[in-house]
Amino acid sequence: MSKKIVSFGEIMLRLNPPGYLRIQQTDSFMASYAGGEANVAVSLANYGESAAFVTMVPANDIGQSAINSLRHWGVDVSFIVKGGERLGVYFVEKGASQRASKVIYDRKHSSVAESSFNDFDWNAIFNDADWFHFTGITPALSDNMADLCLEVCKMAKKKGITVSCDLNYRKNLWSREKAKGVMSAIMPFVDVVIGNEEDAYDVFGFKAGDTNVIDGKLNRDGYRDVAHMITDSFGCSKVAFTLRESISANDNNWAGMLFDGNDCYFSKKYPIHIVDRVGGGDSFSGALIYALHNNFPSDQAIEFAVAASCLKHTIEYDFNHVTLDEVRNLMGGDGSGRVQR
Amino acid sequence: MSKKIVSFGEIMLRLNPPGYLRIQQTDSFMASYAGGEANVAVSLANYGESAAFVTMVPANDIGQSAINSLRHWGVDVSFIVKGGERLGVYFVEKGASQRASKVIYDRKHSSVAESSFNDFDWNAIFNDADWFHFTGITPALSDNMADLCLEVCKMAKKKGITVSCDLNYRKNLWSREKAKGVMSAIMPFVDVVIGNEEDAYDVFGFKAGDTNVIDGKLNRDGYRDVAHMITDSFGCSKVAFTLRESISANDNNWAGMLFDGNDCYFSKKYPIHIVDRVGGGDSFSGALIYALHNNFPSDQAIEFAVAASCLKHTIEYDFNHVTLDEVRNLMGGDGSGRVQR
Amino acid sequence: MSKKIVSFGEIMLRLNPPGYLRIQQTDSFMASYAGGEANVAVSLANYGESAAFVTMVPANDIGQSAINSLRHWGVDVSFIVKGGERLGVYFVEKGASQRASKVIYDRKHSSVAESSFNDFDWNAIFNDADWFHFTGITPALSDNMADLCLEVCKMAKKKGITVSCDLNYRKNLWSREKAKGVMSAIMPFVDVVIGNEEDAYDVFGFKAGDTNVIDGKLNRDGYRDVAHMITDSFGCSKVAFTLRESISANDNNWAGMLFDGNDCYFSKKYPIHIVDRVGGGDSFSGALIYALHNNFPSDQAIEFAVAASCLKHTIEYDFNHVTLDEVRNLMGGDGSGRVQR
Amino acid sequence: MSKKIVSFGEIMLRLNPPGYLRIQQTDSFMASYAGGEANVAVSLANYGESAAFVTMVPANDIGQSAINSLRHWGVDVSFIVKGGERLGVYFVEKGASQRASKVIYDRKHSSVAESSFNDFDWNAIFNDADWFHFTGITPALSDNMADLCLEVCKMAKKKGITVSCDLNYRKNLWSREKAKGVMSAIMPFVDVVIGNEEDAYDVFGFKAGDTNVIDGKLNRDGYRDVAHMITDSFGCSKVAFTLRESISANDNNWAGMLFDGNDCYFSKKYPIHIVDRVGGGDSFSGALIYALHNNFPSDQAIEFAVAASCLKHTIEYDFNHVTLDEVRNLMGGDGSGRVQR
Amino acid sequence: MSKKIVSFGEIMLRLNPPGYLRIQQTDSFMASYAGGEANVAVSLANYGESAAFVTMVPANDIGQSAINSLRHWGVDVSFIVKGGERLGVYFVEKGASQRASKVIYDRKHSSVAESSFNDFDWNAIFNDADWFHFTGITPALSDNMADLCLEVCKMAKKKGITVSCDLNYRKNLWSREKAKGVMSAIMPFVDVVIGNEEDAYDVFGFKAGDTNVIDGKLNRDGYRDVAHMITDSFGCSKVAFTLRESISANDNNWAGMLFDGNDCYFSKKYPIHIVDRVGGGDSFSGALIYALHNNFPSDQAIEFAVAASCLKHTIEYDFNHVTLDEVRNLMGGDGSGRVQR
Amino acid sequence: MSKKIVSFGEIMLRLNPPGYLRIQQTDSFMASYAGGEANVAVSLANYGESAAFVTMVPANDIGQSAINSLRHWGVDVSFIVKGGERLGVYFVEKGASQRASKVIYDRKHSSVAESSFNDFDWNAIFNDADWFHFTGITPALSDNMADLCLEVCKMAKKKGITVSCDLNYRKNLWSREKAKGVMSAIMPFVDVVIGNEEDAYDVFGFKAGDTNVIDGKLNRDGYRDVAHMITDSFGCSKVAFTLRESISANDNNWAGMLFDGNDCYFSKKYPIHIVDRVGGGDSFSGALIYALHNNFPSDQAIEFAVAASCLKHTIEYDFNHVTLDEVRNLMGGDGSGRVQR
Repeated sequence: MSKKIVSFGEIMLRLNPPGYLRIQQTDSFMASYAGGEANVAVSLANYGESAAFVTMVPANDIGQSAINSLRHWGVDVSFIVKGGERLGVYFVEKGASQRASKVIYDRKHSSVAESSFNDFDWNAIFNDADWFHFTGITPALSDNMADLCLEVCKMAKKKGITVSCDLNYRKNLWSREKAKGVMSAIMPFVDVVIGNEEDAYDVFGFKAGDTNVIDGKLNRDGYRDVAHMITDSFGCSKVAFTLRESISANDNNWAGMLFDGNDCYFSKKYPIHIVDRVGGGDSFSGALIYALHNNFPSDQAIEFAVAASCLKHTIEYDFNHVTLDEVRNLMGGDGSGRVQR
Repeated sequence: MSKKIVSFGEIMLRLNPPGYLRIQQTDSFMASYAGGEANVAVSLANYGESAAFVTMVPANDIGQSAINSLRHWGVDVSFIVKGGERLGVYFVEKGASQRASKVIYDRKHSSVAESSFNDFDWNAIFNDADWFHFTGITPALSDNMADLCLEVCKMAKKKGITVSCDLNYRKNLWSREKAKGVMSAIMPFVDVVIGNEEDAYDVFGFKAGDTNVIDGKLNRDGYRDVAHMITDSFGCSKVAFTLRESISANDNNWAGMLFDGNDCYFSKKYPIHIVDRVGGGDSFSGALIYALHNNFPSDQAIEFAVAASCLKHTIEYDFNHVTLDEVRNLMGGDGSGRVQR
Repeated sequence: MSKKIVSFGEIMLRLNPPGYLRIQQTDSFMASYAGGEANVAVSLANYGESAAFVTMVPANDIGQSAINSLRHWGVDVSFIVKGGERLGVYFVEKGASQRASKVIYDRKHSSVAESSFNDFDWNAIFNDADWFHFTGITPALSDNMADLCLEVCKMAKKKGITVSCDLNYRKNLWSREKAKGVMSAIMPFVDVVIGNEEDAYDVFGFKAGDTNVIDGKLNRDGYRDVAHMITDSFGCSKVAFTLRESISANDNNWAGMLFDGNDCYFSKKYPIHIVDRVGGGDSFSGALIYALHNNFPSDQAIEFAVAASCLKHTIEYDFNHVTLDEVRNLMGGDGSGRVQR
Repeated sequence: MSKKIVSFGEIMLRLNPPGYLRIQQTDSFMASYAGGEANVAVSLANYGESAAFVTMVPANDIGQSAINSLRHWGVDVSFIVKGGERLGVYFVEKGASQRASKVIYDRKHSSVAESSFNDFDWNAIFNDADWFHFTGITPALSDNMADLCLEVCKMAKKKGITVSCDLNYRKNLWSREKAKGVMSAIMPFVDVVIGNEEDAYDVFGFKAGDTNVIDGKLNRDGYRDVAHMITDSFGCSKVAFTLRESISANDNNWAGMLFDGNDCYFSKKYPIHIVDRVGGGDSFSGALIYALHNNFPSDQAIEFAVAASCLKHTIEYDFNHVTLDEVRNLMGGDGSGRVQR
Repeated sequence: MSKKIVSFGEIMLRLNPPGYLRIQQTDSFMASYAGGEANVAVSLANYGESAAFVTMVPANDIGQSAINSLRHWGVDVSFIVKGGERLGVYFVEKGASQRASKVIYDRKHSSVAESSFNDFDWNAIFNDADWFHFTGITPALSDNMADLCLEVCKMAKKKGITVSCDLNYRKNLWSREKAKGVMSAIMPFVDVVIGNEEDAYDVFGFKAGDTNVIDGKLNRDGYRDVAHMITDSFGCSKVAFTLRESISANDNNWAGMLFDGNDCYFSKKYPIHIVDRVGGGDSFSGALIYALHNNFPSDQAIEFAVAASCLKHTIEYDFNHVTLDEVRNLMGGDGSGRVQR
Repeated sequence: MSKKIVSFGEIMLRLNPPGYLRIQQTDSFMASYAGGEANVAVSLANYGESAAFVTMVPANDIGQSAINSLRHWGVDVSFIVKGGERLGVYFVEKGASQRASKVIYDRKHSSVAESSFNDFDWNAIFNDADWFHFTGITPALSDNMADLCLEVCKMAKKKGITVSCDLNYRKNLWSREKAKGVMSAIMPFVDVVIGNEEDAYDVFGFKAGDTNVIDGKLNRDGYRDVAHMITDSFGCSKVAFTLRESISANDNNWAGMLFDGNDCYFSKKYPIHIVDRVGGGDSFSGALIYALHNNFPSDQAIEFAVAASCLKHTIEYDFNHVTLDEVRNLMGGDGSGRVQR
């Protein structure tokens, strides 16, 4: 059995109206539990990895439900600590056509945001582990979390554990200035950097030439430059980007790039008719980590990550539930969606 | 605070099966309350206008529910009268691909159709008002309603209140001959005429050249001619058209034109992936009235009305619930539907 | 009144998660009852034919519910026999974009699979009938069923009843070798052969040139050849094919071909935005049988069958519920999906 | 096979909020189709009788759905005529504890209320029939219906067909005076009269002593007197009453009485925890007619009718779906509700 | 028109699983908006009073939905202020039999809890008002709120506005000591004090003899003493208590007492089969305020309040939606729950 | 940490209509996964025990969903084997009042029924275990299962593992004769025997005097005798019975008895208003095993088991989800169901 992959971050109660109803129209919410790093842990468990997710949740039914939802999909929850006052909540409204999807966060004062390094038994957590993953959301939650992330990354590095970080810049959590400061301190302990088409600019000011995210045109060459800027600046060994072209809230094109320190590998581009795109980036991270953890060649790794996350866009809620066979089938060229009997 | 906008007409119980089920397949109906002029009132209240809707509903839970649903969205319901025997009902079946959406009306004998001018306190209603809106559906409901509409329009005109009318021809309510007679008498008191690609021909016999509504091709030049025919014949000051190209029940193109007495302004054309198109025309009227009431220049007025009603096609049920910011964002060119966090 | 059309086969409990949920995600299933030949019977009753469906169901609430669901849509259920131990079940998961729809069968040991020729009163069943329909699924269910199908087809032939068969090869029910043996023995008693783009090859090894079903490209010329191979080999009088191009799980192109012994008639091709494609082929069979039973000219027959089955793709669940008017309207060229009021 | 039982009356669309929601609270309605005589027809088909229901429904999807729902449960719908303008609608709000259930009717101008005797082919309808059933609701719908009921009862009498009538007085349909006049003219052609604890007084002014329906106390002796008054006045051969004691909207006691011209038979009394009590009286009529049609002795007939209708109170919607075995089991004394595996 | 009744407090998003599901079992929540004082405002608007509710909600869709839900039921929302960071959330799990209902609060840091006196325009709010209502929950939310309540009560007193307070002790919001201190300072400005069977003890240490709330036995005499203690200590003019006997989570007995300064009036006691008991106490306050505002004699006032709140227990969610006629009917003795047609 | 408790048996897909709908009425089923021994495993994990459930499920999404549902609640699923052809299905229809709940099984040919001893790694399974539980359903499934149960019990005995067995006689799985033969051979290896009021008679012919399960009267003295008969015949050390009095499908009384070899301990009797009683007996077993595993004194053990299983009757679906605190609170006398905030 391969070694354990640990991820740390916030898991929240996700509430979304059924179908395409707006939040103001609904009198019920579909309830699920999700978060950037939790989504990655579920992807990894789904592909058969030993995946542990670490967080703090309140000692009530909402906190326990979050734990149950991870357990349901095979994630190791034995390091989750109970305490603090609340589980963060976020509301998702599914967009359609020209109407954008909308996410409203109510995550302040969450148990994990107010926890700190010593609340967790990191030696036990890292026992038998060889990979640690987190996202840029976590250090943005609070100063406690910024400190914790730095400490944990240092500790992981010391133990020879590979560290991956999805930049995931969120403007309503912190300013670009704050983000740059905190993240620049952490980056030297990160091996694999993941981001979307805007993150590198938002966090570090690295710009991929003239890409305009509104009109959906991507400047692929620019991404090579950004990848180099990141590895040059922080010494990370690998950089991966998701490349999204937004045609409408229903239709996106989706691709990715992996820079492995030597070359840049661009994946095929998939036109996607979207079911639920929240968690799409996390499913890319989860699949990429799986691929790298299993030593896929770079070209296969990026194709695997993009195919897996392409399929995620057809899955309701944040977690990705697609099989290795389904991903491989799509990588192999069958995107026809013909009935499987 | 700007002055009150009054609309008068029928509000009905709308029943539709969930999702794409046909009426014969369903064992439940989603219930909402809507009607041409009520939809406009909700749009106006939504944009912050003081909007009063006037009608008669039966003195039972169904009538009260219709009132509550308007109150919910901020419409002034203080002039709604209770009486008569029933609230009209209509059944909506959502189409898909080549299968058309279907509307079955059961609206005869409704409270409002059997009410008359003296059932309402028009002086109180028009106090502080500067705009009156109705649609061609209302005079089609009954002779009572035809008389009432004429009287109310005359009274509004006398009080210096702007009158707008969405022609909204419904072949199952009256013949073209009847419509032409009644509407021709009312038109001289109407300032702003609104219609879709077929109304002007159905009601007045004005034809926009060789447009074929089935194959979705529009003859834009022809619409200029029709606008002129209307202003020339009846002395209306403004004419606006919605321009719909039906590709399938899921996909339509959507644009509009405003003739302000001097020039014709055509809006951008939006390709729409439809969630619910019933009430689309009313959302155009509501947004256009808002724009004109707030003295938008003609080119901005038509762009606002088309962008707002484009977005309506992504909203379930008849009422439009989009924010001024969302409309302005789309007018400004962002139809990418990217997640708003 | 025209004569009765009889179909025989399995009806199962179909369970599918709501919307696009995967089976592993759902905590409820939508329940309906369906099966290849039952679907055809419902189509025929829907168009006004006298349609009897024959099967065996267990003597419990699940078996009775299957009967009720057929009765609901006007199918004659008076020849259905109660007995055996279970009703087959199948689970349907709706695909989207690159994620394929998935069908899981749990149909072994069903009442009908374990029934045999003498369980049914074939003389009564065929009284007043002039058409018998079955699919290649039925003889694949069990040796009993293979025997029964052969006996029934012989008997039908003797009585001058037209026999139609939809090849419907299912690889998880039998091997190609077994299928070829059984079906080749039955074919001489079949008048009308129906199949999709793969069936003729899977069952008989007849290949339509270089058609590649994965990339959705069809070789129409090849189908002529296959039709000739079938009529030449077995003496069938007519052969019809559905021609599906799979763009994604949401979007397919759909057309058909009818070879009437003299000429091949290809229908228009429809781009379809799919609601539920399971049962699509059966709706083609049902409509084709209706057209042939009512002596439509060959070109009209194939256009009718393809238009009807195009519309089926917009209907939830297996059964097709579209009116003759809706089919004729689409055949006549109106696929614009404009609201019908 | 025993002879056909015909019932005639109105079938409506029943709309009720889910669970205990009030009408003003709901945004969806459960949809079913029901009516006094239709409910009886479904009960009879359910017990294996040949049961035909006759009515007029509009030629649209709502009318067809009403037909389908009868067909679903095995009722012969071949004499239902299509025409007129609408299907009546009624709204049911389920009460609880001290809050009463509430029914709002929107049934005026229905197709059947505006139909008349000659719209139906009575000779065909009565072919092979030996029983005709209707309720006091039907002649209350319109003068047309009052005339039709009288004519049909006369015709049935002439053909030697047994006629049963459930008095079913509805104060919002007609006054006591009108009811008395119309019903007194029809009664001489009725063999079996059915009523609840108030009907005989409301329609004919026959009073069962000092029964007070509000406090749920019943004066059983008084019912004997009322039964005699009815048979003495109109020459009916049998009179049956349902005896309901209302403890709350959730809990009722339920019993019945049958006067067979010689003796009065009172059934056991059942305490019922209610699921849905609408249609309870109709299920009594249906079961009583079944019992009499099958020549049950009077004591068994009333026990059968009361046990069957007791069970109906545990079934959602108007129709009764309980098996002969379930009724017999309850008659035999097992009301323990132990799980049946 | 009578004068305006103002209430102030917190409105929250209420989330409850459907039916009897536990929180850990559900994957959806029913969403409504409620709070002690908001519930009272809805009751008052429901009875036709002019009722204004004052609070602060965040400027997002959740805050707006709370406003809409009040507007829906006719509450004046024009004094609600937008600001702060979040709307409180509470989770309700419906109990059954011996399993208690459960409420989990996530209300810290809510917009209103962090607002203060100067955020509201009290002179405008109290214009035309003659009654002010709040509950003991509000000063428990934060020191800000404790200060605000004291200031507002003083101001109301000065303006001659009647002040009512429902003690509503919540042990998870503050200690008994803190509550006693804060509430004792406010009480001198309160005219009408309302409480349940435990509040007076929890807040002030006033004890009604040997009542044991667990076994559901009430010592009615003791309540007289407590009422006197309250009026004697603080100079309040009226004291009212709800008297609940808990038999199980499904079945409670319910009564009330009003001390009007002279005499104690005990209401009838109602056995209730519960649909939703959350908000039961608030519906008592709302009805009592209505009765006192309309000068009902004391015996009628307490009967009205108890009957209205008895009926509330049959209504889903916190708000009470029963008509004056329904309350009067129950006061008049009809609790039989017979169908109202 | 205490040692592991192992249970072995079948887990099935449970399908039940929503609410009180009958199977023939529903068009959807709620889906859960359950089975006698699986239910016990979930109870044990719920109380904090290390609980492993062993079975075979098919290698498809239905089998995986069964595993996920156990994992969700903390059960160790690492010994579940994939193979065989199907997961058993059972349909549950919830009864009400006099209408009994109904269970229809479709479980033949399930993966586990066709598995055998060598399909499982019993040495690994029993590593670190000190308790093994199974029910009389499992050996009834097939001869394979009867053999397996005997072998496993022998092996457990040899390893010094305590063995418990819930007799759970199911007449549709085997005859009393077959049951007696198989179970009599296994009993000598069983330490703790559990049964309901009928099992001992059905399986072994041991009769508790004149108890009549239909009228709900229990002869408690008789149960002492039966307990002695069991221990005398087979050498078991403890015997426990659930004692159910069925008043109706909604209302049952519930108690239990434990004979610990020395004395008989009868628990309190609880009147229960039922939410879902399927799995009630299993929740008794689960709680009793927990109590015995934790060395509760006999009187506390039976009170714990009865209180826990009383509460189960208020939980939807088979699994019991109540906390240790909730059980202790009820044992302590608080069955008032008062809201817990």
